[in-house]
Amino acid sequence: MTATTVGIIGCGYWGPNLLRNFAENETAELRWICDADQSRLAAMGRRYPSAQTTTDYQKLLADPKLDAVAVATPVATHFLIGKQALQAGKHLLVEKPLTATAREAEELNELAARNQRTLMVDHTFVYTGAVRKMKEIVRSGELGQLLYFDSVRINLGLFQPDINVLWDLAPHDLSIMDYMIERQPQAVSAIGSCHIEPGIENIAYLMMLFADDFIAHFHFNWLAPVKIRRTMIAGSSKMILYDDIEPTEKVRVYDKGVTTNRTGDREADYQRLVSYRTGDVWAPKLDSTEALHHVVAEFLDSIRTVRRPLTDGEAGLRVVRLLEAAQQSIKNGGQAVQIAPTP
Amino acid sequence: MTATTVGIIGCGYWGPNLLRNFAENETAELRWICDADQSRLAAMGRRYPSAQTTTDYQKLLADPKLDAVAVATPVATHFLIGKQALQAGKHLLVEKPLTATAREAEELNELAARNQRTLMVDHTFVYTGAVRKMKEIVRSGELGQLLYFDSVRINLGLFQPDINVLWDLAPHDLSIMDYMIERQPQAVSAIGSCHIEPGIENIAYLMMLFADDFIAHFHFNWLAPVKIRRTMIAGSSKMILYDDIEPTEKVRVYDKGVTTNRTGDREADYQRLVSYRTGDVWAPKLDSTEALHHVVAEFLDSIRTVRRPLTDGEAGLRVVRLLEAAQQSIKNGGQAVQIAPTP
Amino acid sequence: MTATTVGIIGCGYWGPNLLRNFAENETAELRWICDADQSRLAAMGRRYPSAQTTTDYQKLLADPKLDAVAVATPVATHFLIGKQALQAGKHLLVEKPLTATAREAEELNELAARNQRTLMVDHTFVYTGAVRKMKEIVRSGELGQLLYFDSVRINLGLFQPDINVLWDLAPHDLSIMDYMIERQPQAVSAIGSCHIEPGIENIAYLMMLFADDFIAHFHFNWLAPVKIRRTMIAGSSKMILYDDIEPTEKVRVYDKGVTTNRTGDREADYQRLVSYRTGDVWAPKLDSTEALHHVVAEFLDSIRTVRRPLTDGEAGLRVVRLLEAAQQSIKNGGQAVQIAPTP
Amino acid sequence: MTATTVGIIGCGYWGPNLLRNFAENETAELRWICDADQSRLAAMGRRYPSAQTTTDYQKLLADPKLDAVAVATPVATHFLIGKQALQAGKHLLVEKPLTATAREAEELNELAARNQRTLMVDHTFVYTGAVRKMKEIVRSGELGQLLYFDSVRINLGLFQPDINVLWDLAPHDLSIMDYMIERQPQAVSAIGSCHIEPGIENIAYLMMLFADDFIAHFHFNWLAPVKIRRTMIAGSSKMILYDDIEPTEKVRVYDKGVTTNRTGDREADYQRLVSYRTGDVWAPKLDSTEALHHVVAEFLDSIRTVRRPLTDGEAGLRVVRLLEAAQQSIKNGGQAVQIAPTP
Repeated sequence: MTATTVGIIGCGYWGPNLLRNFAENETAELRWICDADQSRLAAMGRRYPSAQTTTDYQKLLADPKLDAVAVATPVATHFLIGKQALQAGKHLLVEKPLTATAREAEELNELAARNQRTLMVDHTFVYTGAVRKMKEIVRSGELGQLLYFDSVRINLGLFQPDINVLWDLAPHDLSIMDYMIERQPQAVSAIGSCHIEPGIENIAYLMMLFADDFIAHFHFNWLAPVKIRRTMIAGSSKMILYDDIEPTEKVRVYDKGVTTNRTGDREADYQRLVSYRTGDVWAPKLDSTEALHHVVAEFLDSIRTVRRPLTDGEAGLRVVRLLEAAQQSIKNGGQAVQIAPTP
Repeated sequence: MTATTVGIIGCGYWGPNLLRNFAENETAELRWICDADQSRLAAMGRRYPSAQTTTDYQKLLADPKLDAVAVATPVATHFLIGKQALQAGKHLLVEKPLTATAREAEELNELAARNQRTLMVDHTFVYTGAVRKMKEIVRSGELGQLLYFDSVRINLGLFQPDINVLWDLAPHDLSIMDYMIERQPQAVSAIGSCHIEPGIENIAYLMMLFADDFIAHFHFNWLAPVKIRRTMIAGSSKMILYDDIEPTEKVRVYDKGVTTNRTGDREADYQRLVSYRTGDVWAPKLDSTEALHHVVAEFLDSIRTVRRPLTDGEAGLRVVRLLEAAQQSIKNGGQAVQIAPTP
Repeated sequence: MTATTVGIIGCGYWGPNLLRNFAENETAELRWICDADQSRLAAMGRRYPSAQTTTDYQKLLADPKLDAVAVATPVATHFLIGKQALQAGKHLLVEKPLTATAREAEELNELAARNQRTLMVDHTFVYTGAVRKMKEIVRSGELGQLLYFDSVRINLGLFQPDINVLWDLAPHDLSIMDYMIERQPQAVSAIGSCHIEPGIENIAYLMMLFADDFIAHFHFNWLAPVKIRRTMIAGSSKMILYDDIEPTEKVRVYDKGVTTNRTGDREADYQRLVSYRTGDVWAPKLDSTEALHHVVAEFLDSIRTVRRPLTDGEAGLRVVRLLEAAQQSIKNGGQAVQIAPTP
Repeated sequence: MTATTVGIIGCGYWGPNLLRNFAENETAELRWICDADQSRLAAMGRRYPSAQTTTDYQKLLADPKLDAVAVATPVATHFLIGKQALQAGKHLLVEKPLTATAREAEELNELAARNQRTLMVDHTFVYTGAVRKMKEIVRSGELGQLLYFDSVRINLGLFQPDINVLWDLAPHDLSIMDYMIERQPQAVSAIGSCHIEPGIENIAYLMMLFADDFIAHFHFNWLAPVKIRRTMIAGSSKMILYDDIEPTEKVRVYDKGVTTNRTGDREADYQRLVSYRTGDVWAPKLDSTEALHHVVAEFLDSIRTVRRPLTDGEAGLRVVRLLEAAQQSIKNGGQAVQIAPTP
């Protein structure tokens, strides 16, 4: 088997992790490292001496021996670099969020389809042991009918100069929900506020309504006194609590719920008992492999086997659509924004 | 000093607590106990043998020697009983929420003003040691400029047959916020869902926008795997975390925040550092007196000294207005509902 | 079926709970209430008007129609009252600890045997849902070989005027261990200190050695900044964590352990790997019935069916023996005290 | 100022941290790296190319330009290497525990004194922000009279092939206590058990009695279902809870205690009230600098300024004495071992 040749564009916060995981994967050959910052580039070059380094990503795109590109640059640049990479015939892995607008994401998807290239977004959390275990549980049906998805991701966080709390944190939880429930909301309402930097929201709340009575809600906050990373996925039979702060027992399944004894007789139903069901709690053992290991493996395998990756460009598009709608709702003071059904 | 004579109407869940606290207050004389349920009434009568019992609250209103009435009946009946009590010249304490509609609350306020009677709503949480201590801290100004109010009140809760999770739980947090920040929002958006009983929301999220960049948010849930009762009040200098589940350290004050060093020079400001400030955490000792003891004392003292009580009918009205707006937003799929400024 | 007639001696802290549970049990008839304090006695008499009241427990013993007596007086008096009750032919339930000395406990056991009366000690914790569930797990063998028992019971506690922290708190944990592992230690070492009241230890640590490498340890403390009630029962395959402060998930079973791969070859064994096994965590649903309900039912059933109760006089004796040994070790500066094997 | 030249002997688990901190300290020059393992040595050599590497520590001792040596080898070798280093005129920093026996520690101390070299033990925890803040609080006297020291350090831990849980974990807590209270116990009792490896205790409990009613207790465990790192230091006025698992609020000061109102009248005293005092809780901000940074700085500064370091050889000796006594008590089934007063 010939190794897939890979180039990494962007060696800031996340890039070094991509480098390390591509370097460790036996089916990949790290061929190019690219960053605009000379000294950072040099440092990475020393770490992976067999790869070529450049500050100009066009060099990568021009290399006919390069199969694939992973882009970990600021969001605003994802579209242009990604577009050129696909046009140059490279397979493409892009950091989350896929692009800065839904229109851009659509164009990347079209281009990848036309050129028959893999387009994948790095929705890292989807590849964690916790999320994969939860997906397994949801898929098994043991939760019963899904009722709601509630996510809180807050702390005294790193302020970004070019992005707000929504575009920074929401891709995590939106991609988890997208993967977990495989449904799209009908409407999104959101509010946010800029307490520190004018024009850059540091707190945001998102509400989502669906076609039936399933609802979803998200709280993102860079200015909270405590760190919370907690998601609840409630079903009519069981509920999941996912606490990412917990060192080991991150996922708990509660055999809890409410049972109504409906008789059909209206008068009797008015008097009927709503009874509580509380049962065992179960914290499954989780695979602790680094998520990015699986991200890189999925990208490479999808290229080799010519199949869509788990978090493909469409998944990236769906998340960007929700981000756009939420941002628009925030601008409009919380007015609900309708989401067009995906074809 | 002559004791104020008091009658209690409604001995269901909360009434016995009112009975006990009025009975223990030396400035009150428990004169009447009223409940529609004969056996419950008899049990209360045995416990407080010096009080008269009746299933007909008109008997209380007709008693010229009765000064005040405390109403702990279902919400739907608050208005009618309260109106008749005020018309009969009685001082009036009503369980939260004050009434089922803002219009009703306004009418009670008008009636109380016209008849020069005390009208008080039992916003119990306002009288807890935790909330009074937080108010003291907020009032001192040490939090800096207030930025947001965030409250979560969820658990596997008691379903009410006649009321949804909003009207059941929100009065607690809305009355706390009303007392704490002394401001009214401009708009309320809310979503909710009825997973168990058609027409009775068991989960609801409320968002509130204010005239400036202060925002507020609330999560109420009867169908959650874990019990959470947590409020964050963030200021530009310090933040409060109020965790009502904690047995003793319910209130924590975090000397945490973000500082920006603005120069005024646009270019420099773009590059300026946002720096984190983390400092001591402080959990003040809290008065552990039962809140209802203070509620009853406040009611009696406001009658004696002919002054407005802390949680007067206007406070009750403000909370009911927010509940109404939230309910309307839920019905309209999360569309924001404007709140008219109070005169 | 004729109801068993019961008299309660001692209505202080615990007596009222006994009264309530005997009154609610359909196979018992509450015939006598006895307390030295007139006003407390009168209050209990009003609550249970069909029972006779007296300040003189000899009246109960002299009543030929009284079948059984429950004693909830100070520890120092257990022996004398219990002895006279057994001599008068009454069945006997005694608060923990059974007596103030092992010699006294032995005498009660002999007397009960001779007179063919039920002698039971109220080791309440043994009857909780948590402890019964743990016993079920231990009995099933799924923990593997038992390795250690570790218990911590500390808080800023109620100082007793006549008893130290050992005699106050240790009966709980010693009776739990006695029930759970059904073994007796060979030696007990203990230290303690009197920081508040001369001669009354407010902190004590107990260590126990057994015939094999199983060990047990206990920490009791009335002067701790936080409240902890936590027991670990470790086995070679699984471990139990019992946290009595947790509102619902009090018992957790950890599928955790250490595996050694022994080869028998000394050199290889020196190099062999000790590998960790971490697996699921499971919090079983627990029966939340009040433990004292089961205590009372067990006492009454053991009388009716003429069988030994679960926590019989021998269990009471075993706990008192350990208390005595620990107290002696404390006096001797932590010198180990040997425990004679029970015949 | 001339930099102090330093050589590191042992690059296993802890050595690389020493290397990094010496490399980053501007007053030190990393001159030698030594490890018996060729490949590990090569890796370290690539990381610090300006230092010389060797598998033979005698090369370091023979280098007249080398001022100081830091030893991070297995405990059994500390004495021999340390002795030769001091004899060669090198200043010496040794990993905890200082030596495998008290006799060895005494000899190193004598040798350092005779040769006028700095002898320091790396009691790392003493240099953490948490412990230094606690020392500041204890020194201020605000705790009142010290009553007890209680430490628990347990988890599912790394089994060591050549050392038991006592020698692995106890140096942390014993050195913290030594620094904090500056007193030596009169007697030590300990029990332990070997559940996994014959002859290697994986669980141990230590009790210490002092000249007055102060007591200390320690629990070390490699085979626990959960990770706990918690120390209580109780005083008559306030108490400290140090929870090293907490990410930020590691140290809490509780304004809690017990007050007795003694009258001197024996009869009245028997009835006197013991009253509880509960007050604020305070979590001071802690310096989060890596402890080893301070260790290295202290070592270098004590050499330059020719003074005793904070954790000098005597501190190392005191800890080893307690370890030896505890080990002896374990062997004797928990019999108390007397500690000779230090001169």
